[in-house]
Amino acid sequence: MASGTPPSAVEIVEVGPRDGLQNESTLVSTAAKIAYIEALVDAGVRRVEATSFVHPKRVPQMADAEQVMAGVPRDRGVSYIGLVVNERGLDRALAAGVDEANVVVVASETFCQRNQGMSIAEAVDSFGTISRRARDGGLRVTATIGASFGCPFEGEVPVATVASLARRCAEAGADEIALADTIGVGVPADVAALVDAVRAVTDLPLRFHFHNTRNTGYANALTAVSLGAAALDSSAGGIGGCPFAPAATGNIATEDLAYALRRSGVHFGLDLGKLVGAAALIGKELDMTLPALLGRAGDFPGALSAERAYASGAAS
Amino acid sequence: MASGTPPSAVEIVEVGPRDGLQNESTLVSTAAKIAYIEALVDAGVRRVEATSFVHPKRVPQMADAEQVMAGVPRDRGVSYIGLVVNERGLDRALAAGVDEANVVVVASETFCQRNQGMSIAEAVDSFGTISRRARDGGLRVTATIGASFGCPFEGEVPVATVASLARRCAEAGADEIALADTIGVGVPADVAALVDAVRAVTDLPLRFHFHNTRNTGYANALTAVSLGAAALDSSAGGIGGCPFAPAATGNIATEDLAYALRRSGVHFGLDLGKLVGAAALIGKELDMTLPALLGRAGDFPGALSAERAYASGAAS
Repeated sequence: MASGTPPSAVEIVEVGPRDGLQNESTLVSTAAKIAYIEALVDAGVRRVEATSFVHPKRVPQMADAEQVMAGVPRDRGVSYIGLVVNERGLDRALAAGVDEANVVVVASETFCQRNQGMSIAEAVDSFGTISRRARDGGLRVTATIGASFGCPFEGEVPVATVASLARRCAEAGADEIALADTIGVGVPADVAALVDAVRAVTDLPLRFHFHNTRNTGYANALTAVSLGAAALDSSAGGIGGCPFAPAATGNIATEDLAYALRRSGVHFGLDLGKLVGAAALIGKELDMTLPALLGRAGDFPGALSAERAYASGAAS
Repeated sequence: MASGTPPSAVEIVEVGPRDGLQNESTLVSTAAKIAYIEALVDAGVRRVEATSFVHPKRVPQMADAEQVMAGVPRDRGVSYIGLVVNERGLDRALAAGVDEANVVVVASETFCQRNQGMSIAEAVDSFGTISRRARDGGLRVTATIGASFGCPFEGEVPVATVASLARRCAEAGADEIALADTIGVGVPADVAALVDAVRAVTDLPLRFHFHNTRNTGYANALTAVSLGAAALDSSAGGIGGCPFAPAATGNIATEDLAYALRRSGVHFGLDLGKLVGAAALIGKELDMTLPALLGRAGDFPGALSAERAYASGAAS
């Protein structure tokens, strides 16, 4: 945000119910998931990645995808996204009544093979088929390019590979391109390089998905906004973790992102206090200390009581 | 880092032994502090804020300032900084053999009064006296403007107030101006505004001190570098906390900052692996889970073993 005029608004896509809960070992009840989503909607969220339509044996946390979709509020103007990696998943997502399909194509061969049992070429073909059927079914379609900033198996991922995938997914009918730093390795310079490369091949809206695995997620998000990102993914509470680093933290937290955006003069339409409440709700379900910091530190400017006088001297 | 050419280098000032340990409730032995500093020096650190010369009743964590200075390695080209808030502290710092004095002036009346029992005007006068005596004693002098990004008691701090203090401290003989986000409320837009305002009144090198209290510290640090900051404070492990928010995290972590700088192409001269080791050393002494994330997540590109194959599907 340091240079130029920051964009006046960005859309926050809440992914805690999907990417957050998927990567927590604790299984959360369907009722608790729905309560989490309801609290997020109360906080103003209007686009929620609610669940993932993948094989329940591979992702037991998402085995209740249909039940979650049957229970979420449908009269509040919310667009619900289901994550899909194959046609079987799309069939389920269509039947469950999602509004959008988020279809993943991973930008490295090894990771693509391990994640969904396909080569990149097969995943792009599959994207074309899924995209056409999803649009026929009335869904908005996002192509998420996984591991855009780096692969846990192959290391660096060429920017040209990501741009090529973005171009092919755009040609195959995507409504939006999402670039995901799946393992949380990117820095703002990577964001700038990817924006340049992808902007050269498509005018589709760009969405970004950052993990704060190495404490670069918020810097990346603010840079993406300054470069015109239309949407940012985040999870209330910062739940999620990383499957490749068991002790690592997860998605950037919605409330911390919202704090930074508000102070940067960027509009996003969410209530910070209610976001902190929604995060606390799921933190209690998961029985964990949330990676999000706003709930611990408090808002600013905020009312610090006189009793919290600083007594130790020599602050800096 | 998104725009323009990033500077090629920045100096990292390690403040874990002072601001880190000062804000941890656990008292660490003098020997452990010296071992921490030795590990940091082994990692390449050449500027260390080693201790604070304040009243031991107010800051018991720093009561062994003289003993720490007597034990640190003096043959490795390291410049040791002592934090000072009054003349008595300067006397002690000079006697203890520090290389630099970091003198704090807080940018809000209430906080200045609570922190060091003076008005801002008195603190500026005091800075002039301390600065002159310190320079006479051969020390380099930094003016740290505390609460430059916001005050826990008064809320917003005008940029003009910070710039005015910077100008007065520069005129009174500072060698360097440090702008401190003492309570971790700033965002990159604040950094840009402060750099503009302070650059208009002084050409002294700018140093920045960020806390990651609300997850904005790394974005701020990278922005400061992109705008020409000469030095950044950080604490190995991210130890420190915030006296106003008991559950909050502390300074930005040296190893996480180093990761982001390295990937951004900015030189800083430290060994990441050894930094993680130094952080682990003090984490063990403090018996805490470090706020720093690199030690948990691992470096990148890094060697992920085949056994860490991703088995759950549908990553993004």
